[in-house]
Amino acid sequence: MAVNLYIPPESDIHPVDGVSIGVAEAGIRKAHRKDLTVFQLAAGSSVAGVFTRNRFRAAPVQVCETHLAGGLDIRALVINTGNANAGTGESGLHAAQHTCVALAEHLKVKPQQILPFSTGVILEPLPVDKLVAGLPDAIASASPDNWFAAAHSIMTTDTLPKIVSKREPLGDKTITVTGISKGAGMIRPNMATMLGFLATDVGVAPELLKDMARSIADRSFNRITVDGDTSTNDSFIIMATGQSGIQIDSVADPLYTPVYDALAGAATDLAQKIVRDAEGATKFITIQVEQAATPEEALKVAYAVAHSPLVKTAFFASDPNLGRILCAVGYAGIDDLDVRNTKLWLGDVLVASEGERHPDYLEADGQRVMKEPEITVRIALGRGEAFDTVYTCDFSHEYVSINADYRS
Amino acid sequence: MAVNLYIPPESDIHPVDGVSIGVAEAGIRKAHRKDLTVFQLAAGSSVAGVFTRNRFRAAPVQVCETHLAGGLDIRALVINTGNANAGTGESGLHAAQHTCVALAEHLKVKPQQILPFSTGVILEPLPVDKLVAGLPDAIASASPDNWFAAAHSIMTTDTLPKIVSKREPLGDKTITVTGISKGAGMIRPNMATMLGFLATDVGVAPELLKDMARSIADRSFNRITVDGDTSTNDSFIIMATGQSGIQIDSVADPLYTPVYDALAGAATDLAQKIVRDAEGATKFITIQVEQAATPEEALKVAYAVAHSPLVKTAFFASDPNLGRILCAVGYAGIDDLDVRNTKLWLGDVLVASEGERHPDYLEADGQRVMKEPEITVRIALGRGEAFDTVYTCDFSHEYVSINADYRS
Repeated sequence: MAVNLYIPPESDIHPVDGVSIGVAEAGIRKAHRKDLTVFQLAAGSSVAGVFTRNRFRAAPVQVCETHLAGGLDIRALVINTGNANAGTGESGLHAAQHTCVALAEHLKVKPQQILPFSTGVILEPLPVDKLVAGLPDAIASASPDNWFAAAHSIMTTDTLPKIVSKREPLGDKTITVTGISKGAGMIRPNMATMLGFLATDVGVAPELLKDMARSIADRSFNRITVDGDTSTNDSFIIMATGQSGIQIDSVADPLYTPVYDALAGAATDLAQKIVRDAEGATKFITIQVEQAATPEEALKVAYAVAHSPLVKTAFFASDPNLGRILCAVGYAGIDDLDVRNTKLWLGDVLVASEGERHPDYLEADGQRVMKEPEITVRIALGRGEAFDTVYTCDFSHEYVSINADYRS
Repeated sequence: MAVNLYIPPESDIHPVDGVSIGVAEAGIRKAHRKDLTVFQLAAGSSVAGVFTRNRFRAAPVQVCETHLAGGLDIRALVINTGNANAGTGESGLHAAQHTCVALAEHLKVKPQQILPFSTGVILEPLPVDKLVAGLPDAIASASPDNWFAAAHSIMTTDTLPKIVSKREPLGDKTITVTGISKGAGMIRPNMATMLGFLATDVGVAPELLKDMARSIADRSFNRITVDGDTSTNDSFIIMATGQSGIQIDSVADPLYTPVYDALAGAATDLAQKIVRDAEGATKFITIQVEQAATPEEALKVAYAVAHSPLVKTAFFASDPNLGRILCAVGYAGIDDLDVRNTKLWLGDVLVASEGERHPDYLEADGQRVMKEPEITVRIALGRGEAFDTVYTCDFSHEYVSINADYRS
């Protein structure tokens, strides 16, 4: 049961010139479902990626990093669901490399021009032969209009596809940004979410695109959390094909900011969609921390609140048991926090100030906000000017059910 | 549904000379339940305490710290359930102080000789008048044999009382150690658990007892976690009455070690009982991390695994989805962890080595261990000689139910 997850109509999904997508049934884990996706990119595209910092990072993540560092133009992405190819050692690395070799042969490019991605169960060998056998079908179905099919094909425990698309004028030209993502558990991205793919027909210099990808990830996919579990496979990719005729080579370019904003807006939308469709989520919660001494401190407090199972179950119950939020602020790790300077709002309701319940606070007001499907928690620390925002969801029976049953 | 929580028969609970306990119904939150407990200590007892590091630490915690630092002999403890007196600001502090004043008048001692404790809902004013009105009943019922009654009286969402008692020979004398504790949610003690009280008839010099309390807390209450939420009210108290005639004044005393071991063993038992009766727990899980570079690193990895909702739900389902454990090891924050040197055992089964599933691992073996009510996860990091152990439980539907309904 996703929370206000907007799925645009097919007619609002704009293909991106230079990007062609095919999907196929490879039978990686289950039969009769699309589990293989191939993105093909026009020559001259630039691609940047941001990946998980989990030390058990998956084999495909390691191969992606090597290929991106290699300096050759990336010409294709290959994504499988059903198996994460993580915790699979040397043989997993060979499987990911073999996937690239096989796809490169089909496309007449070099294996180093392919980026592989996997998502699914950890610690089980990737059935690479099935994957490779599915490649011809995925290539045969390639079309610029397959974004919806791809959004479906990369889903695991997601209940809905996540897709964003916009087309906007820029000078005398028009630019397009379209992207997809998937969640829905093991989400506390530390570089990016499980998988997010964003494409634009703007051209961006490779080094600049790398900086943009990192900065945008830190505003979008790195600001969401479902369960605090940083996945082994988190990957966020921006593809810039340049087919619009617009090319950006530096931050000084007057078009840089509008392009950055278009990409960042799309990435934030995709990241929030992951939270809206998080495993078992019934509420979408925004945690704003302000008046922190440093941005790191703001983020630490926001995550402490966002990860507290007690806070999350209270949201699930629509119970304004708000002492739990203050408790999480208190153990977030700010050793010299003076609680008398803190304030807590739930939506527009001032709940606590000076370290205690505000005299005007009424339970009925807290209750009213708690019943909303979208709730903003605002915490002022009274220590400085820094701030940050994290997006999360509640913790429900359904989360337990999904994760107790995931492999079966 | 507690996991193998041993409740000794009444006949095995040994009173501690110099300790007398009374309980009463004060109607703090609910009528007709014992919610007020008063410990009285013989003159000359020494008392040491270890308290939460949560910055929103409750008013009674603040008063305890002040009174313990004051240097007067502590003569009584007063404990209420139903309200945590936390997030209650100045008025909460006055309520805790007023409680001490009222009890001191009854007992003809100074208010600074009283330690107050509260546990229950946060952010609501303590009904101190009800508490004070209940004191005469609690005093009137004082008896050395009321340990069981006290263990019941301090319960909140606990399903069973937690009590430990032993009597053992020491030289030509006999010493007694008896204690109680309570959980059962908001448990990731960072100084001690919600409430733990341990008494012995050994006499211990006050400064030495302080060191012992901290060291013992770090081996017991500070090594358990249910949900990662460090409470505002965690308090662990050791009372040493000296009535046995044995007195210890330094670590050089030959009796120091057996007394320390007796107290530490009892504290670990009480701490583990909290996990065994944790909210919704169906499994008791021991996480041993070894071959770490530093003890801090071992603890960090153990807590990452112990707090992962994905790991905890897999245990609930008895599903050996063990990649989730490696994933948590990977994001625990050891930046230079080489996963090829790690090993993972589930009970006696070697699951993973060299960063991948061990070739001899059979799902059936993992399944067999996962079905046990008590499971040991052992993780070797291959980095050094340091180690640590953390105790936790699984994450069930019942946890969500309990915490979604707690206030109602």
